Formats: sequence, structure tokens, C-alpha cells
Amino acid sequence: MAFASDEVGNYPKVGVGLAGFGSVGAGVYKHLQRNRRLLAERLGIELTVRRIVVRDASKKREPQPPRELFVSHWRELIADPEVQIVVELIGGVEEAFALVTDALRAGKIVVTANKALLAEHGQEIFKLAESKGVPVLFEAAVAGGIPIIKAVQEGFIGNRIESAHGIINGTCNYILTRMANERGLTYQAALAEASALGYAEADPTLDVSGWDAAHKAIILASLAYGFWVPPGDVYVHGIQGITAEDFVHAKRLGYNIKLLAILKAHADGAVEVRVHPTMIPHDHLLAEVDGVFNGILLWGDVVGETLFYGRGAGQDATSSAVLSDLAQAATDLIRDNEPNRFRPHGLYGRCLPIEQIRSEYYLRLSVKDQPGVLAGVAGILANRQIGISSVLQPPPMYPSNIPNPTASPEDLPALPAADSTGTHQHVDLILMLHFATHRQITEALEEISRLPYVSSDPKPALIHVEHLPE
Amino acid sequence: MAFASDEVGNYPKVGVGLAGFGSVGAGVYKHLQRNRRLLAERLGIELTVRRIVVRDASKKREPQPPRELFVSHWRELIADPEVQIVVELIGGVEEAFALVTDALRAGKIVVTANKALLAEHGQEIFKLAESKGVPVLFEAAVAGGIPIIKAVQEGFIGNRIESAHGIINGTCNYILTRMANERGLTYQAALAEASALGYAEADPTLDVSGWDAAHKAIILASLAYGFWVPPGDVYVHGIQGITAEDFVHAKRLGYNIKLLAILKAHADGAVEVRVHPTMIPHDHLLAEVDGVFNGILLWGDVVGETLFYGRGAGQDATSSAVLSDLAQAATDLIRDNEPNRFRPHGLYGRCLPIEQIRSEYYLRLSVKDQPGVLAGVAGILANRQIGISSVLQPPPMYPSNIPNPTASPEDLPALPAADSTGTHQHVDLILMLHFATHRQITEALEEISRLPYVSSDPKPALIHVEHLPE
Repeated sequence: MAFASDEVGNYPKVGVGLAGFGSVGAGVYKHLQRNRRLLAERLGIELTVRRIVVRDASKKREPQPPRELFVSHWRELIADPEVQIVVELIGGVEEAFALVTDALRAGKIVVTANKALLAEHGQEIFKLAESKGVPVLFEAAVAGGIPIIKAVQEGFIGNRIESAHGIINGTCNYILTRMANERGLTYQAALAEASALGYAEADPTLDVSGWDAAHKAIILASLAYGFWVPPGDVYVHGIQGITAEDFVHAKRLGYNIKLLAILKAHADGAVEVRVHPTMIPHDHLLAEVDGVFNGILLWGDVVGETLFYGRGAGQDATSSAVLSDLAQAATDLIRDNEPNRFRPHGLYGRCLPIEQIRSEYYLRLSVKDQPGVLAGVAGILANRQIGISSVLQPPPMYPSNIPNPTASPEDLPALPAADSTGTHQHVDLILMLHFATHRQITEALEEISRLPYVSSDPKPALIHVEHLPE
Repeated sequence: MAFASDEVGNYPKVGVGLAGFGSVGAGVYKHLQRNRRLLAERLGIELTVRRIVVRDASKKREPQPPRELFVSHWRELIADPEVQIVVELIGGVEEAFALVTDALRAGKIVVTANKALLAEHGQEIFKLAESKGVPVLFEAAVAGGIPIIKAVQEGFIGNRIESAHGIINGTCNYILTRMANERGLTYQAALAEASALGYAEADPTLDVSGWDAAHKAIILASLAYGFWVPPGDVYVHGIQGITAEDFVHAKRLGYNIKLLAILKAHADGAVEVRVHPTMIPHDHLLAEVDGVFNGILLWGDVVGETLFYGRGAGQDATSSAVLSDLAQAATDLIRDNEPNRFRPHGLYGRCLPIEQIRSEYYLRLSVKDQPGVLAGVAGILANRQIGISSVLQPPPMYPSNIPNPTASPEDLPALPAADSTGTHQHVDLILMLHFATHRQITEALEEISRLPYVSSDPKPALIHVEHLPE
């Protein structure tokens, strides 16, 4: 949109330094220019970029900031008295930690989008920030443009966060959405597509392993539960083992598969923080958060069910969150307000050990198609007090005959009875299991894997099932 | 959940006065008690209810506050030096205005959930608040537990709000959801059901007329566009004219019908604010916001598409928003922070006249089933440059043969060709129309209504169609 005038009136100015001018840094610069009058009039303050750290000042850029803004090292940016807010956008952990802590020691406000940094060093960083009396803002670190940090810290401050179920990694959600929508598409093919479209990094490990989502879950959980959740207490499982067949089975059973970050509070003050592929009812709103979008279903004891949806990554959505933090920081600075800070509280304080986390499960086994298989598997589960809610034994599937997972259930071919005697060497056997602890199911799975008629190629696959709070 | 200790440590206290102890007042009191330790530890401040205005102090209540908190008039509450924050929950406009302005003049912070009050007197109230240097907070006034005020004012402060499409009246959404899901259910029957369940007031006019949603739209628009939108500039149309047949036709055409509050910004600085029944694509997330839930699809020029979902009314969800405002108010008070305030800005400043608003439309006519009808109607539309995108002439429908609107389109009976010659006296004729201004379509409809073969019983019905931004 074009406006008659982009003249900005006479407002107090706050100087911003951008440490990093990649995609997000360029986005912040671009949108600060584009909406400068709007921001200034809304805030009563003008945000001005004073310094930008770049490696190569001669490189052509779009947008192209004036050359005189460029400095070659973030120490110059921190040393500049005109820079009051430092925006950390260099990524990684070690150097970012040095940058953020140096900036805080110099009394600069810090805005960061770095979830790995906060998940690993949040406690030290916030302690330092508090001792220096300057804030650290990080709306962009979780779920990009969705103001979920503000919602948890401020909007739901009167609530106990009973649970949160978040689709908070766009790369994984793109891959899983494509596998859900295209018959027979393998994980590898979907990942290749995501890479070609720029939705996956050259090395996608951090995303597909679940650890990027785990970093964000740690930040959300720490805010919701008032203590810094140690990364080692978080159960993290990636999406690499999900097959095209799993989506067909899920569809038939009424589920979709999403990588979820799950937080739950227990009555005794323990909390669960975990990230793993999860089957959720296909007709739930969260199951319809598709592609690179993020969605967070958050349940508060006062507010009940809420859902937040939007772009979780990318230049523009992330910039929107950084602009919000810049506005908050500038306001507190000019008005001399005491900023918000992380306040530990004593209602929670420990994570439930992974072994004790209870869940329902989908279990996929590749078994010899012979009598007695189901009896053997069911016997092991029964001995460990794990109930079976349903059993599917679909015909063997290859890419050419995988039913289209977007077809309605009644259009899928009829299934042979479970435990039938067929002519195929190996067939999938799907069991839906009632609640069991991680320890119970892990031990049962080890024992099942040793059965002579259970194949180790492909290995048994276990997917958590969540019916979502209502 | 039960906790080992509900002891609250030694924190500075802020006194709260509740003006009104109906459903929301009792909810605020209940949840302040229930989560008092959590709130105190998160805030570093203890919120304490000091005074409650009730008409009859002897009435039994659940929860039952100590008798000594009761006063019989809000002037006593304002006069009490221990009350620093006044929560206006008496509803209505005139007395609430007196209460809020008196409280501000006495230097008390005001928290209110009263959308009618703010829509009609927002400008005066915020001007007074600014002159007294005390804030007015109103998160509960729009979309109940969804922190949408905070999102618009803070989360998306760096964005131009290009559009918002909100389902922000739970009563209407309950009625429309029931009509969408149950074959042949009339508006009157659905309203009676909503009343029986407590989802509609004894006099439901404010809700079903669209005006409750319009009050909320005015508040959101005023925040988004930086000027107080005059209620007279808002186009408001209620849901009373929607028929069971409209849902069948909508389903066949791929739409669901929702009462939407719509905000749009134009490049020249004009904005649209309107509330009316709207057909939206049935597979859009917003079309799946059902029952008493609220959903707001908000499009920012930086962040892109976002959606917020949650309970828009009721004791608990509204209390959650009031607690958030109380926390903010108490924090600003204790830290001596300069509070947020309404800041007009000069990028927008006027509403597009209703006559100039452009939309697509669904037009339902009841016509004599004779040759030439379609030619006559189409001729009038063509003369006014209104394009037709599709025509449906379904068989006449009575409650006994209305197809189930939840059936998939291919299960619906085949339609006779439009303009066919049948034996029925009157049949529905449905036209889907391309973009036209309100003036164009209103004038065309007047002319069409005068055609001899167009019935006035039922009257022609016009429903806006929105394809939603992508």
C-alpha cells in the first residue's frame, strides 16, 4: 500500500543495532523502513537502525542499507553509544551467548530469535539480565509471528497452563503434510521437496530430529511453569522413521500424524515436556494446521481451550515478532518503565522422568504372515498390563497400491481379518494400545522385537497417540 | 489440582474493587482466590479484592465472599482508598459510563469488559484516562479469553492490519452451527435451543442483530486503525433472516455461513467495518470455528495470516482476560510504569461509506416457476454491471425433504436445470454474484423485487460471500 506521506514527526529516537543481516535481519530492516511512520505514531517513539554487523560490506543487498551503518564485528555494535537495543540474529549458541552476555553487561537491551541459545543458556542469560536491570526479549524465538510468548506470559498470567500441544516446526509440518496428502510419498522424497522449496536447511538434522521444536518447547515450558527446564529432561523423537504406510493406517484409524511439542502439568507439581510424532484425531482443528504453518493448542485452567495459528518461520513472520519486541523495549526505555522479567515460581519445579510419562500408542510391526503372531504379541503386552484397543492387519502395501490417504475411510479397500493366514512373507501388524508408561512400552517392545516372526527390517515403529483435551 | 501449600509470601498488595458480582464478577473473585499464589509469584504482587458492589448483601452466593467486603453502591467502592483498581462489570451504557468516568476522575485504574460502553464512549473515556494519567484496560471486552486486544496493540504493533475476519459472537455462532449441522432446523428453533442452554439472553436482540459483534468490531478497528470508528459508519446486519434452505444451498456451493465482523484497510486510508452473515469456504479453518467458540482471522502486512481461537464469553474465559488486565494494571502501579494508552495515528481516519463497500453475494429469490424468470433477473443485474458466477435452481424444499447439510455434495440430489419449467408455484432461485458495491446490489435488488414473478414472501435474501485472504 502507498500512503500520501511517509514523513515521520518529531519523536524521541531509540537506536537499534542488528547483529546479523541474513533473512531475518534484512526483514527487520525492511519492515522498520516500510512501517516506520505507523510504528512511530503508534509508539510515540522512532526506532532507527544505527549499526548492522555484516561480514562483507561490499556485497549487494536487497534492501540495501547505507554503507555507513555497516560494522564488521558485533563488538563494535555493542561499543556504539548510539545503539540502545541489540538484536541478536547470528544464530548458533557459543558466539551468540558471548554476544548477548556482552551486550547485557554493557547495559544494552537484547532482542533475540535464538531458541537454541535460550533453551541451553536461558537461566544464566536471564539472571545476568536481571542483575543488570535490562530486559531480554524473545517473542521471535517460538512460533515466529504468533505472539505466543506474550500470550503465555501476559494474556494467560492468571491461568495454570494445564497443557499445550504445539506444531512449532514448519519444516517437519511441511514434510508430514505432504506425506499425509500424497499417496505413497516417502519421508526422503518429502524432505527433498522441502529442501528444494527452501523449507529445509542444507543440514535438516536440527529440525527433523525434533530438537528445534524441543528448544521452543523448553522456552514455553519454562515460562509456563516458572523454572528452567533442563534439556536433558525432555523426551525428543524425530520424524525420520515415519513411513507412507503409517499415514494410510492413521487415516483409516481416524488420525493425522503431526510432530507435536507437548507440555502437561501434573497435580504434584511435576511437568512433562516432550516432542515426538503424534497421532491426533483428524477432525481436530490442530490436525488441520498444514504446511509450514504453526499451531498451538493451549489449555488454561481458567480460559479453557485456545488455539493460535500462523506462520512459524520465514523472514516476514519472524520480523513481525522482532518488531513487537523492539516496540516493547523502546517503550520501556523511553518511559523508564521497569521491564518484565522471568520470575520463577514455586508451583512446579521438576520434570516427570521420561520412563514415567504415560501415553497411548500406535505400534507398527512387520511380521511373518502366519497363525499365532497376534497371540504372541498380545501375550507380551498383557503380561506388562498394556491394553490393546484395536488391531489392524492391512494387506502388504507398496507405493503402487497404497490407498490415497485423502480418500474417505469408506473408500479404502476392506481389510483382511487380523491374524489371517496369507501368502505374503511379511505384513504390517498395527496395534492401538491403551495408556502405558514409557518404561512399560519400551520394555514390551524390546521383548516383542525378539520374537522370531517379528522383522527388524523395517524396525517396529511406535507413535504416540493424543486425543487432545476437551 | 491441589497443591501442597497455598500460602502466599510477602508481596506488595494491590486492592481491587468489583463493581458487579454476577457471573463474571463471581468468576474473577473465584479465580483470584484459586490461583492467588500462582499470580502472586508470577507478578511479585498480591491482588486482593477489597470491595464488592452487590444489591443484596444477604443473598447466598457461590463463591461466598466475606460480608464485610460488600458495599451497596459503586460510589462507595470508588471512595475507598484501599481500592486502586475498579473492575466495571455492571454492564449497560449510561450507569457504566458514570462509574468509569468517576473512577478515572478519582485516579483509579479501570478494568472493564463492557464493549457497548467502549464502542459508544471510547473516545471520551480514553481522553479522560489520558488526562488523569491512569489506564483503562479492556481485554475482556472482545473475544473473551482470547488475548486479541494484546495481539493487536502489542503483538502486531509493527503491522498494518490489512484485514480481520472475526466470529466474535458466541450466541450467533451457536445458532448458525446448529443450523449448519441439523437438517431443516429453523432459525427460531435454533434460537430457542440456545436460550434453553443459557447461550442466549432473555432478550437476544443485541446478539442476533449483530450489534454485540459490531461493538467488538468497533473496538478492534479503533485499535488497528488509530481512530475511533463512529458506530453510525458501521454496516450491521443480523442473522434473523437466514433459513434452513440457505444452509443447504451454501453446502452445495462449498460454503458455510457465519456471522462475521470484517475489518479491511484500503490503500487510500479508508477502512471498512461491517458485521453480517457471510458465506466462507467450508474448508477454511475459520469455517470450522463452531458452537459458542470465537475465532479471529487476522492478516498483517508483515506477519501474514494468523488465527486466534477460544471461548469468547462465559464466566471463566472472561475472567481469564480480566485477570490479565488486573496483572498488567497492578504491575504498572507498583513499578510506577507509564501505562500503555490509546494512540491515534494518521494513516487511516475515515470509514468507507457503506454504499461503496464491494463484496460478492449469494442472492436467494423465491420465484414463480415459469420460463423467462432467469432472463428477467439476469437482465437487471447486467444493466447494473453485476456479473453472475453461478445459478442454482434447486427443487422446492420443505423441512421433510431438505437434504442433510452435513452430507457431502455428491450425496445431494441432482438439481433441475436453472430456468426449467416445473409444476410448482414458487421455487428458490439462487444466484452467486461477482463483486458489486452495496449501492449497486441494493438498487438491483429493489428492481428485482418489483418483478411480477418474484415473491415477497419470503423476501429476497442477500448474503455476503468472502473468499478470505491467502
